[in-house]
Amino acid sequence: MKKELRCSSTRPPNISYIPNKHAKELGNAVPTTPFFFLKPTSSYLLSGEVEIPKGCVVHHEVELGVVIGKGGRDIRKSEAMDYVEGYALGIDMTARNLQDAAKKNGLPWSTAKGFDTFTPVGEFIPKSEIKDPHNVNLWLKLNEEIKQNGVTKDMIFKIPTLIEYVSSIMTLEKGDLILTGTPSGVGPILPGQVITAGLNADNKNISTIKFSVVERVGLFEYKQ
Amino acid sequence: MKKELRCSSTRPPNISYIPNKHAKELGNAVPTTPFFFLKPTSSYLLSGEVEIPKGCVVHHEVELGVVIGKGGRDIRKSEAMDYVEGYALGIDMTARNLQDAAKKNGLPWSTAKGFDTFTPVGEFIPKSEIKDPHNVNLWLKLNEEIKQNGVTKDMIFKIPTLIEYVSSIMTLEKGDLILTGTPSGVGPILPGQVITAGLNADNKNISTIKFSVVERVGLFEYKQ
Ligand SMILES: [Mg+2]
Ligand SMILES: [Mg+2]
Ligand SMILES: [Mg+2]
Repeated sequence: MKKELRCSSTRPPNISYIPNKHAKELGNAVPTTPFFFLKPTSSYLLSGEVEIPKGCVVHHEVELGVVIGKGGRDIRKSEAMDYVEGYALGIDMTARNLQDAAKKNGLPWSTAKGFDTFTPVGEFIPKSEIKDPHNVNLWLKLNEEIKQNGVTKDMIFKIPTLIEYVSSIMTLEKGDLILTGTPSGVGPILPGQVITAGLNADNKNISTIKFSVVERVGLFEYKQ
Repeated sequence: MKKELRCSSTRPPNISYIPNKHAKELGNAVPTTPFFFLKPTSSYLLSGEVEIPKGCVVHHEVELGVVIGKGGRDIRKSEAMDYVEGYALGIDMTARNLQDAAKKNGLPWSTAKGFDTFTPVGEFIPKSEIKDPHNVNLWLKLNEEIKQNGVTKDMIFKIPTLIEYVSSIMTLEKGDLILTGTPSGVGPILPGQVITAGLNADNKNISTIKFSVVERVGLFEYKQ
């Protein structure tokens, strides 16, 4: 009996472009080649509440998401934008203390990045609505306080470079979402807070998302 | 306009149980809690050739795969086997030199584990065909030489523990494949070689897979 183990998936490779400021903030060196990790599709949050697992220090990272419109492998930079169907505003939630421990111990980032609700995303933005994806304003508020406010021109690696790089490793599929890294100002979110984030282009708001934060009830608890 | 960014996916969380011997082989400490990483669905290989990207030292890790039959979160150990639909023989191909560099630099494992063709899998094995998944023989040959030959009773964490752990972090979905770690004997594969791997239970062969190895043609090249 043959069972198809693979199906077309919307998995988000998450490219950490890490703009200079954020890299410095986290004590990271500015990378000379891109690197990325995978977030599970189960971490997507379209509506509802962001959950903080017990013992986790969870940071917000507001990011521009690139939605892939047709699959490909070894996509050249020069043709990469033909594979883009549109964009989405996303937040790459990260359990920073788990990520720090993983880095220190040489372990995968999948847990730190992969909890349920750790990838809140907004509505699909057709490609035509953003003329220049490298000149987009991303902002994030906790309650009423602005925490992140940056422009995607600070990306170390531009979108065509990211698409070329990822697709030289893994075939990109229609529906894949590539999150592209975050401006400076990352920091912890706490139960009871409300996160609002937005994407502006040409001084016009294109997308806004809003989520409240709650404590996660369940089996997981991180103990150092 | 709302576009559904998430769809049901067959993503394989890959649990590294790392039996004692393999952990020692790799100079790893035996972990006290499970850890895992994600392999992209694009890495599945049902037939065809395993590709070695340029500059990569690719190791074979033959593993027992657990196929999830119904989704769940916070699945208790005591009920975990009810969520298992069956099994599959798999190979967790790993670009060892990239993984070693990632460990050293505190970076994600996604590239080292995620190239196209890095997850060869066999046919679906119904649950009833394996009475005791912790007493299964896994073996792997390169050409005619046996390289790995172990029994799943050496797993540090049993399958119910793995399911409880993963599902306490990310909701498991129908079709997810959990690879459970490899016996000792991992080592490099080279273009021109043929990999044969098998899963035996109760002294009966349940599944065999066979793949030839080729050099990957394309943009990617790893330079230290
Ligand atoms: Mg990020
Ligand atoms: Mg990873
Ligand atoms: Mg493995």
